[in-house]
Amino acid sequence: MGPMMIEQEGHRQSVSLSRIAVSDTHGEDSPYFAGWKAYDEDPYDESLNPSGVIQMGLAENQVSFDLVEQYLEKHSDATNIGTSSGFRENALFQDYHGLLSFRQAMASFMEQIRGGRAKFDPERIVITAGATAANELLTFILADPGDAVLVPTPYYPGFDRDLRWRTGVNIIPVHCHSSNNFAITPEALDSALDHARAANTKVRALLITNPSNPLGATLSRATLDLTLDFVSRHDLHLVSDEIYSGSAFSPDEFVSVSEVLKSRGYRDSERVHVVYSLSKDLGLPGFRVGTIYSYNDRVVQTARRMSSFTLISSQTQKLLASMLSDKEFTEKYVRVNRERLRGRYEAIVEGLKRAGIRCLGGNAGLFCWMDLSVELREGSREDELELWVKLLREVKVNVSPGTSCHCSEAGWFRVCFANMSERTLEVALGRIHDFMERRRRRN
Amino acid sequence: MGPMMIEQEGHRQSVSLSRIAVSDTHGEDSPYFAGWKAYDEDPYDESLNPSGVIQMGLAENQVSFDLVEQYLEKHSDATNIGTSSGFRENALFQDYHGLLSFRQAMASFMEQIRGGRAKFDPERIVITAGATAANELLTFILADPGDAVLVPTPYYPGFDRDLRWRTGVNIIPVHCHSSNNFAITPEALDSALDHARAANTKVRALLITNPSNPLGATLSRATLDLTLDFVSRHDLHLVSDEIYSGSAFSPDEFVSVSEVLKSRGYRDSERVHVVYSLSKDLGLPGFRVGTIYSYNDRVVQTARRMSSFTLISSQTQKLLASMLSDKEFTEKYVRVNRERLRGRYEAIVEGLKRAGIRCLGGNAGLFCWMDLSVELREGSREDELELWVKLLREVKVNVSPGTSCHCSEAGWFRVCFANMSERTLEVALGRIHDFMERRRRRN
Repeated sequence: MGPMMIEQEGHRQSVSLSRIAVSDTHGEDSPYFAGWKAYDEDPYDESLNPSGVIQMGLAENQVSFDLVEQYLEKHSDATNIGTSSGFRENALFQDYHGLLSFRQAMASFMEQIRGGRAKFDPERIVITAGATAANELLTFILADPGDAVLVPTPYYPGFDRDLRWRTGVNIIPVHCHSSNNFAITPEALDSALDHARAANTKVRALLITNPSNPLGATLSRATLDLTLDFVSRHDLHLVSDEIYSGSAFSPDEFVSVSEVLKSRGYRDSERVHVVYSLSKDLGLPGFRVGTIYSYNDRVVQTARRMSSFTLISSQTQKLLASMLSDKEFTEKYVRVNRERLRGRYEAIVEGLKRAGIRCLGGNAGLFCWMDLSVELREGSREDELELWVKLLREVKVNVSPGTSCHCSEAGWFRVCFANMSERTLEVALGRIHDFMERRRRRN
Repeated sequence: MGPMMIEQEGHRQSVSLSRIAVSDTHGEDSPYFAGWKAYDEDPYDESLNPSGVIQMGLAENQVSFDLVEQYLEKHSDATNIGTSSGFRENALFQDYHGLLSFRQAMASFMEQIRGGRAKFDPERIVITAGATAANELLTFILADPGDAVLVPTPYYPGFDRDLRWRTGVNIIPVHCHSSNNFAITPEALDSALDHARAANTKVRALLITNPSNPLGATLSRATLDLTLDFVSRHDLHLVSDEIYSGSAFSPDEFVSVSEVLKSRGYRDSERVHVVYSLSKDLGLPGFRVGTIYSYNDRVVQTARRMSSFTLISSQTQKLLASMLSDKEFTEKYVRVNRERLRGRYEAIVEGLKRAGIRCLGGNAGLFCWMDLSVELREGSREDELELWVKLLREVKVNVSPGTSCHCSEAGWFRVCFANMSERTLEVALGRIHDFMERRRRRN
């Protein structure tokens, strides 16, 4: 074979096979393929394989499925495309604007999650097949090949794929530290910008995730103010990935950039773009439902036209338009889902505490950020990886090492708690407890 | 605003706003936005607006919807995600491999359309949200920014978006001519390659559409052999877009590149990639179902990983897995759909003939390729556009001018016939007939 780019080293960033292997996410943000493989080959099952690997590397929300199922059972009319009228229209609908009823329902759901403190215009909602595509699309629009996007660390490993693979754009990390709970500071932002200038790289945007994955914590209003000031001062764009906004344990603890914009009178709002998805908050990753909400008319227009590459099935838009328009359902769902996630979070933090492990204080998401730095021999990345292998092989739990999230300090791990039953979580915590006991006895 | 690429002239090809305006397709391959606008503002309706514009620029298949609707009514169990078991699994399913049952059903449907003369391995099927995304993805994989893909003219105007916008790749036209019914010849291919060499552009692939859009005709086995020889000789890839394969009026008249590969003992098959979709043959563009079938392991692997950006809703995969696995349904559907399309085609060709207009001999697709070159004053592109405006304003039919398909000769138009009722088609043909009569009388 001659000119196959995928066989040539150093060719287009997006399709270098080595990159693909390293960043392989198998549909989620698993850092090391080995972890998935170990799980796939020996998955835990309470009765069939009680000594198997427990998957704690998967940010899936399964705790509130029963509510969605209940809704669907009660409303089979809304969901059965076959016997409902308008099938023809639905099957033919490929307008890249998306179904108006779906965009209206999404706007209203996003408002509800934010406690009504932000307003969203359905005309500014651009549909994409998942947040993955939304983040890629925004990168295509906001940056040229060779340009860079700033991303505070630790960050979702999938960004290495979403922002870089096909766009030719680079990520410059904004290094945050445990000393202040990984807060985004003016110094960290300036330092990343200095780094870019030294490398002669044009920075186009700052991407924040709020609530943060992997930290499992919301950003403060002060942090949002500071990032908005920063992008204004340096003529950048701000992408706020808020895909866990409905998974903040309390509605009041989550502040959306949209609320802050409102309180600033929407000054400079054309720099701001929000990414949302139903994969996490509603637990529907298979349905591939993502959105870009931009305050910039030209970005809305361009993103909409480019969404041809990544539209959402009209069948799925129709189902979700019905489901999300049902206020009785969404209000109950959001409330109960928050309560259950908080319950899970408290259980895992308490369980880890009993095992002698502390976590970063969290208030959102499907994971906690576990600090095992005191367990490392010398505090190196190699130590972290060694401990991670031990957790996988000896404890049989697959967690995500902080290194995969580009964390600047070794010894942190992301531990997911919403993709399993309470009983399985207990088993996992029991195993970790025993592991720590054994270590202590040995020392 | 400072560094917003979409505001900068000459910046990344993919997001130049002027390009977007020119290539705007509003979900389909309309060449001139004006045509859509005229239709949108004054759409024909038999009783409500009998003098409105008839949309003949839209390659949608609505002639066999009743069969799909019948199936869905009879099998509401298979389609109602709400009350069926396994909703959880389905909602969580985001594996970029796609549902195995769906890939199996697609492979089998593709075999059926080819009369069983080609075999497809479900493991080589990569899912994408429509053929738009499939063609873009292949371009990302096979070519670097600045490289080129050869495309025989006339071609689907959407390729200017799909192959170029975000990839930075160029299209070099292979100019085909009416003198031999727009056949792809060795001379035309060599000439395009010479053109590329002169411009110092690296050519990576040849993209053919079979059956051809806009010609409405299948490629001959000899043409396929010649293109396979050409790509082998010049170390290129061959992308065969076969999204109208099930819309060939007779199953025997369509020869897939897959059959030719088989008869060549799969020699050099790793250069070949087939694109398919259910948008045309099943009339389901809203469901966003496309696939890449590659004979190249590394392309399969890379495309699959990159399909994260453009997956198909698992809800839709599940519905289609059921529908396409039902042999009784698919056999009847494919047979009846072919018959109906042939009937429509014969009606339009006969009607145009009565109006004194000839068409290229066709045997596939949702359109015919109408020759009005004798009606042009000087045979220029400007004349073609003038005539097109007349057809839109006076005759009130919106067809696609050949110029939008990069046709190298002026005076050809693509006329769609499957997106309306038989009655509406008759009205359109009557209008065209009267228009031609008036012209004759004036001359």
